[in-house]
Amino acid sequence: MTDEDWMRQALRLAETVLYITAPNPRVACLIVRDGQLLAEGATRQAGGPHAEVMALRQAAERGIDVAGTTVYVTLEPCSHYGRTPPCVDALIAARPARVVIAMGDPNPLVSGQGVAKLRAAGIAVTTDICTEAALAMNPGFVARMTRKTPWLWLKLAASLDGRIALANGQSQWITGPAARADGHHWRARSCVVLTGIGTVAADDPLMNVRHVETARPPIKAIVDTQLQVSEQARIFDGTPVWVFTCVSNPEKAQRLADRNVQVVTLPAVNGRVDLHAMMRWLGEHDINEVHVEAGARLSGALLQAQCVDELLVYMAPMLLGEGIGMVHMEPLQQLTQAQRFEFIHTACVAPDVRLSARHIDHWKTLLQALQQQN
Amino acid sequence: MTDEDWMRQALRLAETVLYITAPNPRVACLIVRDGQLLAEGATRQAGGPHAEVMALRQAAERGIDVAGTTVYVTLEPCSHYGRTPPCVDALIAARPARVVIAMGDPNPLVSGQGVAKLRAAGIAVTTDICTEAALAMNPGFVARMTRKTPWLWLKLAASLDGRIALANGQSQWITGPAARADGHHWRARSCVVLTGIGTVAADDPLMNVRHVETARPPIKAIVDTQLQVSEQARIFDGTPVWVFTCVSNPEKAQRLADRNVQVVTLPAVNGRVDLHAMMRWLGEHDINEVHVEAGARLSGALLQAQCVDELLVYMAPMLLGEGIGMVHMEPLQQLTQAQRFEFIHTACVAPDVRLSARHIDHWKTLLQALQQQN
Repeated sequence: MTDEDWMRQALRLAETVLYITAPNPRVACLIVRDGQLLAEGATRQAGGPHAEVMALRQAAERGIDVAGTTVYVTLEPCSHYGRTPPCVDALIAARPARVVIAMGDPNPLVSGQGVAKLRAAGIAVTTDICTEAALAMNPGFVARMTRKTPWLWLKLAASLDGRIALANGQSQWITGPAARADGHHWRARSCVVLTGIGTVAADDPLMNVRHVETARPPIKAIVDTQLQVSEQARIFDGTPVWVFTCVSNPEKAQRLADRNVQVVTLPAVNGRVDLHAMMRWLGEHDINEVHVEAGARLSGALLQAQCVDELLVYMAPMLLGEGIGMVHMEPLQQLTQAQRFEFIHTACVAPDVRLSARHIDHWKTLLQALQQQN
Repeated sequence: MTDEDWMRQALRLAETVLYITAPNPRVACLIVRDGQLLAEGATRQAGGPHAEVMALRQAAERGIDVAGTTVYVTLEPCSHYGRTPPCVDALIAARPARVVIAMGDPNPLVSGQGVAKLRAAGIAVTTDICTEAALAMNPGFVARMTRKTPWLWLKLAASLDGRIALANGQSQWITGPAARADGHHWRARSCVVLTGIGTVAADDPLMNVRHVETARPPIKAIVDTQLQVSEQARIFDGTPVWVFTCVSNPEKAQRLADRNVQVVTLPAVNGRVDLHAMMRWLGEHDINEVHVEAGARLSGALLQAQCVDELLVYMAPMLLGEGIGMVHMEPLQQLTQAQRFEFIHTACVAPDVRLSARHIDHWKTLLQALQQQN
């Protein structure tokens, strides 16, 4: 097995903690000697041990001496005290011969220090193995650390001709139960599930995670410029909800606060919530990934504001002709004005398909931010 | 290797003659003994030898005695004199021990006679091996034989939100050069490339096969209810073109005839060419497969008339918001009114994706027609 092979195996292990580590990144660690996997570990819930510590613990439990081994870790080991002691100190104490790292710590304040400490302790370090795959595991964490806003994906469900509803509004159901259940995996991995007041008023959705077991449900959030939301909306189920608005209504805000709802007043742009201000607020509140499930209006506004990093599109094998389009935006004058995405994955979710695409420039910016630190 | 394995190998061989056999079906034949492939053949251009004869010739050239072998053939061997003598007689003369057939001859007049003759000659026959895959190789031939009309697919190129052009009409180019070249493979396999007068007037397209070598270019055709087409249109390049219209204009028809264009006057339905009459006319003229590349108006009319058997959709990774939809149709009142397709294939044609879907009921009807003959 090459370094790349081991790192891919580590990334598969990191995927098993996809839903639970936020706001920490998903990280996995393998301890290998002579082509044999000796121990492994992945980050637990925030406040719990990091991947390196989990792997070292497993090695200790198995009576394995880590000295002289090669350690694979999908993110540069931390070198500072957070809620847990620095992993790099634990690694140095264990004396591996070599540490292989997929990507550097994206936090510009600490980046490179983990590597430097390992090298200073006489441990060989190889960096940038499977960097893109490692970034894909934690785009939200990297986005929050480097550009101060979360990574946001837009979930859309439409017919092959891009209709999310018939002209008369009927939309239940264009995609099938499997596609809808699949969407809950994406809700589960996010930190915030965001929708708009239009969807809440029309469909009164729960917006929670179903069909998927999760110990760390995302926070729910609504963009509601005029604070029109019904206090009886089903989304207010006692779990935390954020409502982004432009108006001040202390009485309604207080009544909502009693139901675990935080009303966040933000500046307006063209009479609607400033979506960039919202993204910065989310970043300041430790939000890595935002899952958007909204109508054409909010989806289009987010896209037009360049806030959309990824598209998650479920397509049903039907053509509806007339109907409601996926995103409502100002008409483009030139095709070259369209934001450029790239397909990254297609999957069959019978009878529908799922197409994933990410914003080329947004992705490149994250990747460059990582690379500049080396 | 099982019978299924050999038949799949035969079907891959049939695929190599995808572009050349029309109006005959694409057929391949393998001659196998003790798990060893001895000889193989595929149907050549119409009037040339069929697959079984090609395989028997190769066996003879190699000095191989076919007696006692197993013969795999993707379509029931013909039992009647066409432009070539019956294959079943050639097979009987060669004395294989067993013949394995993917699907019966879809022609109700001859179906089963090939099998009956083989059995009467003491040869074991196994039928219906990989039938669906064999049907997928020749949906047009089976459609023409059983329902008297060709198999028709609609090629569409759109953004992820189903826009084939911006609101201002700009459409060049939403999908990339690879997707456009890929589309020429589908033109090449068809018997007719069909478009509408709107597209001819707006884009003046050539509608010929480029990017793909073909010895049997498809006929080009235009739906042009009022016979408005310009006599200088580039589509009139001296190769055969059919123009379907509802009006009679002998002078224009004569001038076009001098340029190898046949004007076909058909009945009207709601003031437009009766598309069912057109489909029957195409079937009567030995057309197996129709490739449609048209605007939203003709595409929608074909879909609404239930003439569309398959969708071939190239999707670009962009969202355009406002713009022209893929198919213009009467608005549906219920989602249950939408015709039901099923995805059969997805492929990356970078930077775009290709999604293929086929009409569930149309496909079932062909499959049942084949099965009823056994």
